Amino acid sequence: MGYFRENVSGVSGYTPGFQPRSSDVVKLNTNENPYPPSPAVLEALRAVGAEQLRRYPDPAGGAFREAAARVHGVGPENIICCNGGDDLLSIAIRAFCEAGRPLAYPVPTYTLYPVLARLEDCPAIEIPFDEGFGLPALLATSGAALTIVCNPNAPSGTCVPFEDLASLAEMLSGVLLIDEAYADFADGDCIELTKRFDNVIVLRSLSKGYSLAGLRFGYGIGHAELIRGLMKVKDSYNVDAVALALATAAIQDQAYFKANVEKVRAERRDLTAALRGLGFTVLESATNFVLATVGAEGGSAMPAARIHEELAKRNIYVRYFDVAGLEDKLRISVGTKEQNEKLLTALREILE
Amino acid sequence: MGYFRENVSGVSGYTPGFQPRSSDVVKLNTNENPYPPSPAVLEALRAVGAEQLRRYPDPAGGAFREAAARVHGVGPENIICCNGGDDLLSIAIRAFCEAGRPLAYPVPTYTLYPVLARLEDCPAIEIPFDEGFGLPALLATSGAALTIVCNPNAPSGTCVPFEDLASLAEMLSGVLLIDEAYADFADGDCIELTKRFDNVIVLRSLSKGYSLAGLRFGYGIGHAELIRGLMKVKDSYNVDAVALALATAAIQDQAYFKANVEKVRAERRDLTAALRGLGFTVLESATNFVLATVGAEGGSAMPAARIHEELAKRNIYVRYFDVAGLEDKLRISVGTKEQNEKLLTALREILE
Repeated sequence: MGYFRENVSGVSGYTPGFQPRSSDVVKLNTNENPYPPSPAVLEALRAVGAEQLRRYPDPAGGAFREAAARVHGVGPENIICCNGGDDLLSIAIRAFCEAGRPLAYPVPTYTLYPVLARLEDCPAIEIPFDEGFGLPALLATSGAALTIVCNPNAPSGTCVPFEDLASLAEMLSGVLLIDEAYADFADGDCIELTKRFDNVIVLRSLSKGYSLAGLRFGYGIGHAELIRGLMKVKDSYNVDAVALALATAAIQDQAYFKANVEKVRAERRDLTAALRGLGFTVLESATNFVLATVGAEGGSAMPAARIHEELAKRNIYVRYFDVAGLEDKLRISVGTKEQNEKLLTALREILE
Repeated sequence: MGYFRENVSGVSGYTPGFQPRSSDVVKLNTNENPYPPSPAVLEALRAVGAEQLRRYPDPAGGAFREAAARVHGVGPENIICCNGGDDLLSIAIRAFCEAGRPLAYPVPTYTLYPVLARLEDCPAIEIPFDEGFGLPALLATSGAALTIVCNPNAPSGTCVPFEDLASLAEMLSGVLLIDEAYADFADGDCIELTKRFDNVIVLRSLSKGYSLAGLRFGYGIGHAELIRGLMKVKDSYNVDAVALALATAAIQDQAYFKANVEKVRAERRDLTAALRGLGFTVLESATNFVLATVGAEGGSAMPAARIHEELAKRNIYVRYFDVAGLEDKLRISVGTKEQNEKLLTALREILE
């Protein structure tokens, strides 16, 4: 079909993780939070009335901006509401990148970045992480108009030190977007950098820490002038009235959020230890998933692809990436204690 | 701030109509439907549970595609779900347009089109409508990669004949997108053209006819291959789980929808007649708004800008466009009988 731009015809598109519709599965493949969202979110849902549905939503999402600003110690003018974190990634690439203005990011990382670069028809400069997923020095001098660092990174689950990102922001002539979709589960974050530098955007999502993947709500934090520019690129009404109400309720319930995150972190510790006990090499994770490398402790082991397949037969879904450097790895979302036990039991059975 | 692309720095962004937060106003400025959405939509809202919020939504929106396909007599593979009609416009422009691949459309029309072209950095070919808002012949030979015809058109409220659009689709070498955001209120639509031609996309919205402007839900109808290409450009999860559930409930309740539309059409007839009685020239409208030209019946009249201002002082909002060709006009959404009466009373008072 000759109607499309060449870069669009040529791209295969992003493949989201498999979403089985049945609830009778152990679903550890797309990094959803295993616990429900705050009861305050469901209360807010019940409170939505016909009038809110009938009228256009607030284009800037004022109520959420106010609430998020209070949580992060910034101003509402430093917040942009988005239709999921992916919306902000797309907005940023369209705002900063084009043919002569490349995108750069360390790899391996979130596989949506190259897809978005391809759609925007801008060069994508991929720089391998240092040993142990350290920030590569070359990133600072790539000449990119936009540099994205996923931190904590997916699929490694690792963090780079705050000071390394501060140095990077200082050295870059372009914009640094820190994709903190998973930062809720880490020991710290980089929001402070948005106050120190005018070229830093921090991306946040309600999909993981707030258990709201179904709601599609993310936001960006940055210098007011940076945010103003991004607002011009976003769809006028990019977040709907229901999502706005529920997201605002969610971020206002910090007590529930913190307890939820703490439960996931506790399960992460147990799951990491148990997988190591089964012979996997598991990186220390700052996220709600772990990256497990098969048979690294010497000796031949069952290939990751095979384990993935065997688990799926048992209705247990984890993520396998058929790409260079990840062929011997499985990315496993941290589930409830019960889900993790089912996974571990199945793994023992498969590996025997 | 030097971080942005030049086309982004240069654009002023789209200005949505004023959204007063108070409900104590007569709001006839953004073409919302004055009647509430179907009770089935509110039932679907109450039925949304924590599990739907926690998990990622269906990326393709299968349930809605099935329901919409049944309504329109096409297949689910002919439907793409979008985060409002604006999302589909943005997706289409990114899919088909770039520096050497222009966008074309007749003017005056929806003022978002040039903003999106500017953001994509593609040429925008604007061709004036013929007298009486007929389709301009030059549109067929503009060489555009994408041609958009808003039909019924905003802000004129007029329709071009089906056969004119059929001829246009046949003559174009690029894609024809028919923006039917307002078609629910017209006597017919162009969905048939998506079956006859492989280069036609029809845009639909739930904001107007279904009274769901707050939900941000639109969709496209087209040849399966065209839809497949657009799916690669959209965000993987561009519509959330709540919007999907509510949109599906809305489109399944065709009885309510048809009665709702009929009420608006009846009020439109009365409002048109009353405005003419006050000396306005009012085009025959196929939408849920009317375009009223002031003092056209000879003699000096109060300028449209002044009337707009006087109405706002009385908490009555209509839309005024300070652009060439529209300075003497007001775009007035069709309200409830009570709202329209309040408007007419205020107009009588102002014009005296």
